Amino acid sequence: MQLITVGTVAFDRIETPFGVAEKTVGGAATYISLAASVFLDKMGLVSVVGDDFPEPVMQQLRDRGVDLGGLEVLKGKESFFWAGRYHYDMNSRDTLETRLNVLLELDPKLPEAYRKAPYVMLGNLDPTVQGKVLDQMEQRPALVAMDTMNFWMDSALEKLKEVIARVDILTINDAEARQLSGEHSLVKAAGKILAMGPKYLVVKKGEHGALLFGQGRVFFAPALPLEDVIDPTGAGDTFAGGFIGYLARTQDHSFDNLKRAIIVGSAMASFTCEKFGIERLAEVSREDIDQRIQQFVELVDFDIELVES
Amino acid sequence: MQLITVGTVAFDRIETPFGVAEKTVGGAATYISLAASVFLDKMGLVSVVGDDFPEPVMQQLRDRGVDLGGLEVLKGKESFFWAGRYHYDMNSRDTLETRLNVLLELDPKLPEAYRKAPYVMLGNLDPTVQGKVLDQMEQRPALVAMDTMNFWMDSALEKLKEVIARVDILTINDAEARQLSGEHSLVKAAGKILAMGPKYLVVKKGEHGALLFGQGRVFFAPALPLEDVIDPTGAGDTFAGGFIGYLARTQDHSFDNLKRAIIVGSAMASFTCEKFGIERLAEVSREDIDQRIQQFVELVDFDIELVES
Repeated sequence: MQLITVGTVAFDRIETPFGVAEKTVGGAATYISLAASVFLDKMGLVSVVGDDFPEPVMQQLRDRGVDLGGLEVLKGKESFFWAGRYHYDMNSRDTLETRLNVLLELDPKLPEAYRKAPYVMLGNLDPTVQGKVLDQMEQRPALVAMDTMNFWMDSALEKLKEVIARVDILTINDAEARQLSGEHSLVKAAGKILAMGPKYLVVKKGEHGALLFGQGRVFFAPALPLEDVIDPTGAGDTFAGGFIGYLARTQDHSFDNLKRAIIVGSAMASFTCEKFGIERLAEVSREDIDQRIQQFVELVDFDIELVES
Repeated sequence: MQLITVGTVAFDRIETPFGVAEKTVGGAATYISLAASVFLDKMGLVSVVGDDFPEPVMQQLRDRGVDLGGLEVLKGKESFFWAGRYHYDMNSRDTLETRLNVLLELDPKLPEAYRKAPYVMLGNLDPTVQGKVLDQMEQRPALVAMDTMNFWMDSALEKLKEVIARVDILTINDAEARQLSGEHSLVKAAGKILAMGPKYLVVKKGEHGALLFGQGRVFFAPALPLEDVIDPTGAGDTFAGGFIGYLARTQDHSFDNLKRAIIVGSAMASFTCEKFGIERLAEVSREDIDQRIQQFVELVDFDIELVES
């Protein structure tokens, strides 16, 4: 196993000003694994679904190198379901419904082959579950990245902080960075959050890009301006999957390589926004990604010679 | 004259979560002229003030190469006054009070020496006044840039569009680009706005940076993540002043040079945010600016080699 991912595998109902997807496959671990599979051959997935989850999607994951030995299938039960509606700006959304279903019973047991994985991605989930995954690793992984959200800051802050202290990289959005630190300035927020344990902090800003903080340095990657944003659901998870997949492939944890991983993750996230659910991500080729990375290079490239006084 | 600027010269009362400035010098033309003066020796300013406007500030402008022959001083009248309050996020604000005062009488008459200026910056102001400035130019300037805001889209859209059709570069924020075009996607919005006449569109996104569209290309510049944002008032005008000042100095209107001008403008705007009013901008040296531009280079710099499949 090169990477194991824990997170939701789910159904989503998504409303946007431009359309509705009634029941589409989603979940953090689904997006993360699909994105990481572009760079890796052998991944593990830790989650739980009901027996309503479609076998073709599971086969699609297996075909892309995702082992499902860690995916529990509960007979006669329903998979986690989330329904949300995006506002006109497509950058904010309301949750309309959450049916936890099988998620209530998620008590992860890692298959033997998962316990020595060098890379671990803790997708957004109850921090208690994230902690249990780390507890079962036989040795400290080479790199642990963690995603979370404001819900856990509101409901399980102490447990959340315990897990944050055990990871190398935390990814959250700008509002969450402000909430977690109590600082409005993202520079100050990053300082406080890095003091909680992680070596690096990635602040995701949706259509406004992402910031990487760590080692006293800061890097900014824009989001690609898109002609059409159809559905941003899973963009953050796709970002995380491309990011950790690239790191696991290159096995280089320097700041400069993390910058590259951010660009790769941003490029992949831009694809996810172009269609509903996992549809666009599942069809993306390495050539598509290379082309999009080139667009990022051009988007921010400038050379400047200062004018003499 | 290398550059002439029309815009407000005013007093501001500014409330932020971190403090209050009761009566500080502001106004679009003030910020634009101060910022541009870093690159230029001979500028003109077209505006109107009351005799309450402080002579030391006028002298400060003259000392920096800003000719005030176009600044009418109305005896016994009060200068334009604006009061605003910033929200906790410092990215949005409410206008608490606007006293137009002398601004109601602004009927610009350009001094002879202004009428052949190669660079013109139309600061945010009634589009009728912006148009009158263009009408008085003896020849088509080499470059005309224009700033405006949603207020004029709501109250004087047809007149605004007439002026937009006459300029080379339009600078507005992202909400305004969406309003003016009726398109949510900034890529589509840019297409529609460029079809109205300008060769280039600069979309200002405050703490989220700026986008440049034109010639079928797009460029993104981040805002520098600041430890403390004290007062963003005038940041957009400082950006515009640094931008047009750099262009007037280099006299190169290529897309690549506009990218540099965007970086210069962004660097200068970051200083304005560090203190109330014009205080920080007025003390900035060329060395400060060079150093900050270097921070922008480092902020977005990455090199990427794609991983072989």
